[in-house]
Amino acid sequence: MRIGVFDSGLGGLTVLSSLLKVARGGEFFYFGDTARVPYGIRSGEAVINYSLQCVGFLEKFGIDLLVVACNTASAKAFGVLKKSFPHMEIYEVITPAVEEVVKRASRKVGVIGTPATVESNIYPKRIKALKPSLEVVQKATPLFVPLVEEGLTDGPLVREAIKHYLLGWREKIDTLLLGCTHYPLLEGAIEELFPHWKIVNSASPLAQRLKPKLKGEGKKEVYLFFSDRTAFLERMISQIPLKGEVKGLEIVPLPQG
Amino acid sequence: MRIGVFDSGLGGLTVLSSLLKVARGGEFFYFGDTARVPYGIRSGEAVINYSLQCVGFLEKFGIDLLVVACNTASAKAFGVLKKSFPHMEIYEVITPAVEEVVKRASRKVGVIGTPATVESNIYPKRIKALKPSLEVVQKATPLFVPLVEEGLTDGPLVREAIKHYLLGWREKIDTLLLGCTHYPLLEGAIEELFPHWKIVNSASPLAQRLKPKLKGEGKKEVYLFFSDRTAFLERMISQIPLKGEVKGLEIVPLPQG
Repeated sequence: MRIGVFDSGLGGLTVLSSLLKVARGGEFFYFGDTARVPYGIRSGEAVINYSLQCVGFLEKFGIDLLVVACNTASAKAFGVLKKSFPHMEIYEVITPAVEEVVKRASRKVGVIGTPATVESNIYPKRIKALKPSLEVVQKATPLFVPLVEEGLTDGPLVREAIKHYLLGWREKIDTLLLGCTHYPLLEGAIEELFPHWKIVNSASPLAQRLKPKLKGEGKKEVYLFFSDRTAFLERMISQIPLKGEVKGLEIVPLPQG
Repeated sequence: MRIGVFDSGLGGLTVLSSLLKVARGGEFFYFGDTARVPYGIRSGEAVINYSLQCVGFLEKFGIDLLVVACNTASAKAFGVLKKSFPHMEIYEVITPAVEEVVKRASRKVGVIGTPATVESNIYPKRIKALKPSLEVVQKATPLFVPLVEEGLTDGPLVREAIKHYLLGWREKIDTLLLGCTHYPLLEGAIEELFPHWKIVNSASPLAQRLKPKLKGEGKKEVYLFFSDRTAFLERMISQIPLKGEVKGLEIVPLPQG
């Protein structure tokens, strides 16, 4: 089985990591659009065009199952991708996270994400649709991606950034949804500051849902592709455990639709 | 006279602002590659290709004088731009800043910039060439651009970020060179924490040097172009005073070489 994972950059590696943890085998093809990361500050139109190009690149490997491992792309481009690539089974990271939140939250949920994800309003809409009694607040936390991409996941600066965005929610919410695939790397620091919150990320619920499909025989092989060799590429990859054999890492020029 | 200003995004607006302050007249055309900002984390090859595309876009307006208002592009793409556009008078932001530092620094200079600018080593090289007795240290401060692009220029988080990168230099340097056109917006906060440092930015020295050339008669007219309408576009523009009449703001698709 050939699984494609597409992300705007390096954050989707947390999703790939979760998939590899539950998979029995399979060939995994990851494309990170590091030449144009972060998608979260781009316009909706740009996110759709870039997503079509990236999935177009992955298509050539004969992908059976595609995971859109970027919340911004999941929010803005999922419908277009389904229509444009009808022969692939396509999953996004939003639905499993929403279902997990609905299962675990008691009263009030806080959602954090990039400006584009928050502006799309997709999490509040989807959570309320499943459980109207839940209150949902949301906030854009655009500094979290550059922090993580620089390898900063704890320490005073990380704590100050978390407090800057989240201190006002301390007693207001009981569950925090991490609506961006970079954020699991900050989960430890957030938990330390707000130990009474339930924290839901988008990587693990998706992996649990796809587990029955990832039963391929044999080895787990990983092929990584990025559209540019950015300053933090190697550092980020080394921070995220990938339970499979990385068979290659290639920088490929920007895919064209 | 038609002046072109090219930057990777919004930071170059501080350069445009300084030019407008000293100019008597002229038409100013700004192109900010907001679709692919920040250049500072991209590879050198990518920075060169993007720079050629952006200046190619500005060329169509019949530019006489072009300012590369991005330190990363100045460091990585200036030579190629000079060769590719021999009919334009092209300036970059590095030389005037280096000369200002050499004039003012007494003993040891600290240079901050994006990872790409620091990796290029251009500031230490150029400073030492003019005044070998000056010691130069440098450091990449990649979080400063996203901070500024989010409109954060003071407060506890900004102070923590400045301390994170610069506290170790408190007694070590006497002069700080801001090697990125976003950083002038953090100058006040840096000054507050390190009041004994001389701070040199790249916008003002360049404007002083170009002042004799910017004597065009009549009004100062400004045309702004960006390759994507990012989340912070309007907010950043409103934060930077432009002493001229803004005749238009247009989002144009990515220029192709």
